[in-house]
Amino acid sequence: MPNDAKSQGGSNRLSKDNAAVLMVDHQTGLFQLVRDYIPVTEYKNNVLALSEIALQYKLPTILTTSAESGPNGPLLPEIRAKFPNAPFIPRPGEVNAWDNKEFVKAVKDTGRKKLIIAGIVTDVCVAFPVISALTEGFEVYVIVDASGTFNTAARDAALNRMQAAGAILISWFALACELQRDWRDHGEVLAALLKEHLPEYANLATSHSAASK
Amino acid sequence: MPNDAKSQGGSNRLSKDNAAVLMVDHQTGLFQLVRDYIPVTEYKNNVLALSEIALQYKLPTILTTSAESGPNGPLLPEIRAKFPNAPFIPRPGEVNAWDNKEFVKAVKDTGRKKLIIAGIVTDVCVAFPVISALTEGFEVYVIVDASGTFNTAARDAALNRMQAAGAILISWFALACELQRDWRDHGEVLAALLKEHLPEYANLATSHSAASK
Amino acid sequence: MPNDAKSQGGSNRLSKDNAAVLMVDHQTGLFQLVRDYIPVTEYKNNVLALSEIALQYKLPTILTTSAESGPNGPLLPEIRAKFPNAPFIPRPGEVNAWDNKEFVKAVKDTGRKKLIIAGIVTDVCVAFPVISALTEGFEVYVIVDASGTFNTAARDAALNRMQAAGAILISWFALACELQRDWRDHGEVLAALLKEHLPEYANLATSHSAASK
Amino acid sequence: MPNDAKSQGGSNRLSKDNAAVLMVDHQTGLFQLVRDYIPVTEYKNNVLALSEIALQYKLPTILTTSAESGPNGPLLPEIRAKFPNAPFIPRPGEVNAWDNKEFVKAVKDTGRKKLIIAGIVTDVCVAFPVISALTEGFEVYVIVDASGTFNTAARDAALNRMQAAGAILISWFALACELQRDWRDHGEVLAALLKEHLPEYANLATSHSAASK
Amino acid sequence: MPNDAKSQGGSNRLSKDNAAVLMVDHQTGLFQLVRDYIPVTEYKNNVLALSEIALQYKLPTILTTSAESGPNGPLLPEIRAKFPNAPFIPRPGEVNAWDNKEFVKAVKDTGRKKLIIAGIVTDVCVAFPVISALTEGFEVYVIVDASGTFNTAARDAALNRMQAAGAILISWFALACELQRDWRDHGEVLAALLKEHLPEYANLATSHSAASK
Amino acid sequence: MPNDAKSQGGSNRLSKDNAAVLMVDHQTGLFQLVRDYIPVTEYKNNVLALSEIALQYKLPTILTTSAESGPNGPLLPEIRAKFPNAPFIPRPGEVNAWDNKEFVKAVKDTGRKKLIIAGIVTDVCVAFPVISALTEGFEVYVIVDASGTFNTAARDAALNRMQAAGAILISWFALACELQRDWRDHGEVLAALLKEHLPEYANLATSHSAASK
Amino acid sequence: MPNDAKSQGGSNRLSKDNAAVLMVDHQTGLFQLVRDYIPVTEYKNNVLALSEIALQYKLPTILTTSAESGPNGPLLPEIRAKFPNAPFIPRPGEVNAWDNKEFVKAVKDTGRKKLIIAGIVTDVCVAFPVISALTEGFEVYVIVDASGTFNTAARDAALNRMQAAGAILISWFALACELQRDWRDHGEVLAALLKEHLPEYANLATSHSAASK
Amino acid sequence: MPNDAKSQGGSNRLSKDNAAVLMVDHQTGLFQLVRDYIPVTEYKNNVLALSEIALQYKLPTILTTSAESGPNGPLLPEIRAKFPNAPFIPRPGEVNAWDNKEFVKAVKDTGRKKLIIAGIVTDVCVAFPVISALTEGFEVYVIVDASGTFNTAARDAALNRMQAAGAILISWFALACELQRDWRDHGEVLAALLKEHLPEYANLATSHSAASK
Repeated sequence: MPNDAKSQGGSNRLSKDNAAVLMVDHQTGLFQLVRDYIPVTEYKNNVLALSEIALQYKLPTILTTSAESGPNGPLLPEIRAKFPNAPFIPRPGEVNAWDNKEFVKAVKDTGRKKLIIAGIVTDVCVAFPVISALTEGFEVYVIVDASGTFNTAARDAALNRMQAAGAILISWFALACELQRDWRDHGEVLAALLKEHLPEYANLATSHSAASK
Repeated sequence: MPNDAKSQGGSNRLSKDNAAVLMVDHQTGLFQLVRDYIPVTEYKNNVLALSEIALQYKLPTILTTSAESGPNGPLLPEIRAKFPNAPFIPRPGEVNAWDNKEFVKAVKDTGRKKLIIAGIVTDVCVAFPVISALTEGFEVYVIVDASGTFNTAARDAALNRMQAAGAILISWFALACELQRDWRDHGEVLAALLKEHLPEYANLATSHSAASK
Repeated sequence: MPNDAKSQGGSNRLSKDNAAVLMVDHQTGLFQLVRDYIPVTEYKNNVLALSEIALQYKLPTILTTSAESGPNGPLLPEIRAKFPNAPFIPRPGEVNAWDNKEFVKAVKDTGRKKLIIAGIVTDVCVAFPVISALTEGFEVYVIVDASGTFNTAARDAALNRMQAAGAILISWFALACELQRDWRDHGEVLAALLKEHLPEYANLATSHSAASK
Repeated sequence: MPNDAKSQGGSNRLSKDNAAVLMVDHQTGLFQLVRDYIPVTEYKNNVLALSEIALQYKLPTILTTSAESGPNGPLLPEIRAKFPNAPFIPRPGEVNAWDNKEFVKAVKDTGRKKLIIAGIVTDVCVAFPVISALTEGFEVYVIVDASGTFNTAARDAALNRMQAAGAILISWFALACELQRDWRDHGEVLAALLKEHLPEYANLATSHSAASK
Repeated sequence: MPNDAKSQGGSNRLSKDNAAVLMVDHQTGLFQLVRDYIPVTEYKNNVLALSEIALQYKLPTILTTSAESGPNGPLLPEIRAKFPNAPFIPRPGEVNAWDNKEFVKAVKDTGRKKLIIAGIVTDVCVAFPVISALTEGFEVYVIVDASGTFNTAARDAALNRMQAAGAILISWFALACELQRDWRDHGEVLAALLKEHLPEYANLATSHSAASK
Repeated sequence: MPNDAKSQGGSNRLSKDNAAVLMVDHQTGLFQLVRDYIPVTEYKNNVLALSEIALQYKLPTILTTSAESGPNGPLLPEIRAKFPNAPFIPRPGEVNAWDNKEFVKAVKDTGRKKLIIAGIVTDVCVAFPVISALTEGFEVYVIVDASGTFNTAARDAALNRMQAAGAILISWFALACELQRDWRDHGEVLAALLKEHLPEYANLATSHSAASK
Repeated sequence: MPNDAKSQGGSNRLSKDNAAVLMVDHQTGLFQLVRDYIPVTEYKNNVLALSEIALQYKLPTILTTSAESGPNGPLLPEIRAKFPNAPFIPRPGEVNAWDNKEFVKAVKDTGRKKLIIAGIVTDVCVAFPVISALTEGFEVYVIVDASGTFNTAARDAALNRMQAAGAILISWFALACELQRDWRDHGEVLAALLKEHLPEYANLATSHSAASK
Repeated sequence: MPNDAKSQGGSNRLSKDNAAVLMVDHQTGLFQLVRDYIPVTEYKNNVLALSEIALQYKLPTILTTSAESGPNGPLLPEIRAKFPNAPFIPRPGEVNAWDNKEFVKAVKDTGRKKLIIAGIVTDVCVAFPVISALTEGFEVYVIVDASGTFNTAARDAALNRMQAAGAILISWFALACELQRDWRDHGEVLAALLKEHLPEYANLATSHSAASK
C-alpha cells in the first residue's frame, strides 16, 4: 500500500523535489457547500495557506475548475492571483479532473510521483482524482483541512475511502513542516507562513519578541 | 481487498453499466429508529435522493422489506411509488436479506458485480448483506448517508466493520457524480436531481440565474 | 413585559384572528449564510412550513427582501409562489425592514397586534424589526427554527437579546399547533401540514394507517 | 413573577402537601418524536422516575392524552399501570390540555396551587398548559428531563419561553429531593427510587455496601 | 485478517453454535469510570442487554472480575444473578484476563473459536484479552456499546487498535440479530429482548398493537 | 433583583470584606455523579481552585456534607485539609443545607451578606440553599464551574432557575479576579493561584520568564 | 432595564453618533486563553472586524491593556496600528478597567452614553467594566464574538450575568449593520468590511459579479 | 504490519523490559497550540502521567525539544525536573526528531525495539518520527491523550496516518496497565499513579477506604 511506512519514510519522504500540488475546484460557489463544521474564515485560511506553501516551497502547482461560468462560480480570486503562470485547466464537463487529458498531462509533465491534493467537495472533486491517481501508481497526500464538503458524515466516508485505497491524510501545517524539514535552511519561509496563517503561533512570536527586548 | 484503488479505479470504475442498487428495509416503523444525529428531514431527503439516482441513471434496483405487517411498518410510500416494476421482496423472516433466496436471485439476475446498498439499520440490515455479498465476490458501495441506525457508536462500528471487510463508503452525492461523470452527457439529469435534493446547490443556481439575466 | 404569561395566555392567546406573519429576507444568497448547525434541507423545510402555516391558517402575510439584484439574491422562489397577492416590499437600502415606511404601513394595515417573524439573518434582519416593533407596542413571536444566522454564538446572542426585550420564542410546530387549537376544527389542515413537513409524524401516520387496515 | 425566590422559598417551598403532577401526552407514538439528544432509554427512564415520584410521595396526579386512537398512540403502558385510579382524561381534540374543561376541573379539584408538569412535546403539550396555568395564577414547575421534543432549538426556545412567563425549570432528581427534604423522614422512599432510576447512584450504594461488610 | 469478509461470512458466520461470551470487569466501582458520553442509564441497559442475549441464545458465558474487594467493587449484581452457573473467575491480580490460566481454560473449554467480548474499561480490560485471543487464533467480536472507558479519545484509540489487530466491532443489537437470523425460528426470543431493552422498538410494537385491534 | 447592576456594582462590589464561601457536599461518592461534560481532572481542579481562593483571600468558609458514612462518601480529603479550623457541618439528613440550623447559624455568624456557593449536585445541593438564602435577603454568587451535576440539561435548568430567582453566575477565575482587584496589592497571591490551577496561564508565565532572561 | 425594547429602539437606537467602543485587553498572551470553541483564526478575524467597524464608522475608541510587560503580552499589533491616535491606557494593575481613573475619564470624555465593549477574557476583563458602567447609567452592548474566555461554561455564565444586569448581547455583524442602517448611505463602507471579514459574503459577491458580466 | 495481533501479543507484549519512552517537544509555547478539545488541565495531567509512568516503571526515556529559545518556549519544567539524568536533546533546527543524529543514537542506545511516543503537535512532532521509526523497523506506540494538536481534524488525520503506517494507538492509562500487568507485583506503583493522575479512581479509593473502616 502506498501509505505504509516504507513508502513515505526514509528516502521516500515527501520533499520540495518530489511533489506537486493539485488545487481542485476551489470556486466561490462551491465554497458555500463546505459545511463540515469548520467556520468559513478558518477554511478559507487553510486553503490560502496551502496555496502559499505551494508558492513558497516552489512546488509545481496545477489549478483546475469545473463549469466556472455556472453556479459553481469562478476560482477564488486570491488563489488565481498567486499563480499567474501555473497550468490552469477549466474543465468543460468532466467531474473527475483525471478524466480531463489536459489535466493529466499537466500532472505527468511535472515528473513528480507524489501528489498533494485538496479541493471542494472532498467526496467528489478530491476523492475521484485521488482514486484515479492511486490506480496509476502515484502516491497521494490529501490535505484534509483544505478540503471540504457538505457534512461530517460525507467527509469521514470520503477520507476513509481514500485512506483504504492508499492515500495519506495530512494537515496543511504538517505539509509545511515536512517540506521545511529544518529551521536552519531558510526557516524564515516557514516563519512568515505561520505569521500570516497561524495566528496562535503569531501571537506566541509577538509575545516572545516583546519579552526578549 | 475490493476497496483498494485498483478495484474501483481505471476500467473498474463504478458506472451506470456495472452497478445495481439494493434498498433494504426503508420502512416507516424502522425510520423511527434512525437517530445517529441526522435530522429526519435530512435523512428522508437522502433516501429519496438515492432512489431518484437509481431511477434517473437506470440502475437495476431491488427493494426488500422485513415483516411489513408488524411494527416495522410498510416501505416508505414514496420509494414504492418510484419503482412500480422493480423486484420487491418482502422477507417473511430472514434478518439478513442475503438469506432470502429470491433476493439473492434478483441480485444475481442483474448481472452486476458492483452493488450499491443502503438501509435501516446500518449495523444489521445493511451490514449483514454487505458481508455476505463481499464473501461471494461482489464489490459493495455503502451509501453512508442513506443508511441510519440508533446512535453514532453503532453507526461507526458498522461502517468500520464493513470497510475492514472490503466495502467502499460513499455519500449519495458522490454516487450521483460518479454515475454522471461528465456534465456534457445529459447533465440536465444531475441538475434536476440537485435542484430537488440539494437545496444549497439549488440556491446557488437560482442566484446565478437571477444574476445572469 | 409582552412575554409574561398574561400577555400570551387567556384571552390574549395567539390565534388566526389576531396575528400577522412577516417573512424577512429569505433570499437565495442569504440562505448560504445560515450555518447555525441546522442542515440546509432541514432549514429550508422549516421556512416552507412556516409559509404554509401562514397560507393555510389565512394569516395576513408580508414579504420583504433586501437588495435582491445584488449578492443577496432573489426571494426563495417557493415562497414567492405561495403568496402571489401578499404585500411584497423589496427594500431599496434599509437594513431594518421597520425603517421602510411601506413595510410598516403594510404591517399596520393588517390591524394585527401580534406579529410572527422569521428571517435571515437572525441577529440583523429579524432582531432589528423585532426591537422596533416591540418599541411601538406590538407583541412579537420569533420563529426560531425558520430564522438562521452565521453560527450558534450569534444566534444565541440574538435570541437572548430579543427575549430580554420582550419577544416570545417559538418553533414553527408550536405556532401551527397554537393556531390549530383543536383537532376537531378542520384538523385536516394540520394533518396535511405535518404529512408534508414533519416526516417523523408522517411515518407514524403511515404505520398507523397500515396497521389499522 | 412566580419564579422569583420568595415564591419558591421559605414557607412557599414545594412540598408533598402543596403540589400536583400533570403527565401530558406521554404516548407511544409521540415518544418517537423526542430527539432533543437524550437517548430513548434515558428519556423513558426519566419519565418513569417522575411517575414513581408522584406515586411514592402521594402527589395528586392527572393523566391526559391526545387522540389516542390515531398515530399518537396509547399512553405508555407502564405509566397507565402505575395510576389505576388517577383522573385520566383522553382529550378528543384540544391541543392545549387546559382547553379541556374536564382536565382543568381535575386540576382545580386537587386544591393545589403548585403544578408539576412534563410531557411530549415540550413546545406544545407542555408549554401551552404551562402558559395557561400561569395566567390563572398557578405556580408551575416544568420537569425538563421528563419532557422532550424534536430538537434542541425547539426545546431551548420552549424552556426560555416558559421561564420568561414565570415557570420554574427543574430536573426529576431535584423534584425528588425537594419532596424528600430530609433523609431521616422515610428516606427509604428516596433510596428505592434512586436504586431503580439512577444507576450511577445505585452503583455507589452497591460498592459502599460491599466495602462495609 | 480475521475480520475480512471470508472469516465472518458464508459458513463462517457467527451463530449460537460457534460463539462464547466473555463479560470482563463490569464492576460497580469501574462503572463510575465510564464517561465516553453514553449516559449511565443507557450504558447499563446495553450491558444487561448483552447479558440477556447470552442467556437467551444459550451462549457459553464466562464472567471475570478484577480485585472485587477493593475500589473496583463487586460485579454488577444483575449480571451475577443472571448466570448462577457460569464460570466466574475473580482474578487476584492479573490486569489482562488472558494472563489468568483459569480464565483461558474456561474459554478453551467452551470449544468455541468465536469470542464475543465486552467490559470496562475498553482500552484495558477489553483490549488486552482481545489482542491475546487474536494472537492465539481466536476470532473476536467486540461489543462496542457494552464496553466503556474514560473518554472518547481513549475509546476511539482502543477500538482502532483492536480493529487493526483483526477484531470485529459490533453493537449488541447487531449481535442479537446475527444470532436470531430468522424471525420464524422462535422470534419471540428477540421480540422479548427488544421489548425490555430497546424502548423505541417497544413503543413501535405498542402503537402497532393498539392500531391493529 | 439582587443580580441587577446596582446590587453588584459600585460600592456593592464583591470583596474580601463582604463575602463568605459555602462548600456544599463535595464528597468523593457524589463526585462520581458529576457528568455535565467537564472531565473529572478539570472539575476537581476547579473545586480546589475555589478552596484555595477562599483560603488565600481569607474569606470565612463553611464546609458541609450530607450523610458522609453512606454512599455519598467523605468530603474530598484535599478540601478538608485546607480548612482545619473552618466550621464543618456534617448534616444528619437535611438535603437542603439551609434546613440545618447549625449551618444557617454559621453562615449568619460570618456577618457577610454576599454568599459564594458551589457544590454537588448543582440542581439540589447548590440550588436549594441558594433559593433559601435569596429568600432571606442574602446576595448569592454561584461558582458555575466548581459545581456539577448529572448532565447539561439538569445543569442548565438549575442555573437558569437560580438566575431567575436572583443569583449571580460566575466562574472561579472571575471570583479570584474580583477579589484581587488590583495586581499591585499583593498580586503574588493571584499569581501563585494561577500557576497552580490555570496551566495555560502558567505556561504563558514560564515562556515569558524564559524569554526575558 | 437598559436592555428593554424602549432603551434600544425608536429614537434610542444605537448609531454612529451616540456610541463609543472600548477594546479591553486584546493582548497576544491573553489570546492563548480563548478556548470557548471558536478557532483562533475566526476569533482574531472577529476582533479585527470590530476594530475596523470602529474605524470606518468613526466611533470614538478607547484601548486599554493589563500588565503588558508581563505574560499577558502586548496589545495585538494589528489593533494598535489601526488606532494611532486613540486613547490608549495601559493599566498598571487594575483588573477592572473601570477602576482606572484615566480610562473612565476617557470614556466620559467621549460624551457617549452607549458603550460597545469586547475583550479577553469575557468573564473578567469584559464583565467587570460592563457591570461598573451599567451601575453608572451607561447602556452597554457586548460584542459576544469579539470577546473570549476559557470555555463555554465560563462564557455562558458571563454573558448571562451581564444580560441579567442589563447589558445587550450582539455580534460584530449586527453592530456593523446597526451602524450602517441604510445601504444607500455610503454602503461601500459595509461592502468593503464584509469583503475583508466575512468570506462567505465575499464569495457571494464574487459569484454574483462573475454571473452579472 | 507491526500493529497486527502477533506483533503486540504473546511473547511480543509491551513490557518494562522492551520499551523506551520518547517525549517530543512538550514545550510551554507549543502547549498553547493544543486545542483538539481536551481542556489544558486534563492535557497537562495526561502528559505528567506519562512522565510518571516512564519514571516509575524505569523505562529508558529521551527528552527532546525544538528551538527552545524561541516562541516554542522551554520544556515544561515539571517534565524536566522528573528526568535529571535522561538524555535531553534540544534540536537546533530539525523538525523531525529522527533527523537529529544524537536523538536517533540515544534511541538506539536503549536497545529497545518498542518505542512509546507522545508530543506536540501530533501531526508533526509525533507523526514524523513515528513514520521514520517504523521505516527502520521499530514498533511504535503512540500515546494519543498525551499528544495534542490544533483541532480534531488535524488530530484524526494524524492518528489515521500513523495507524495506516503500522503504529499502535493507546491511552496513557492503557500503557500503565500494560506495564503493571499484575497488581500483585508491586501494585502500589500503579495505585500511587492513579491516586495522583486519575481523580475519578482516587475518589473510588477514598470512598472504599472510608466504607471499609
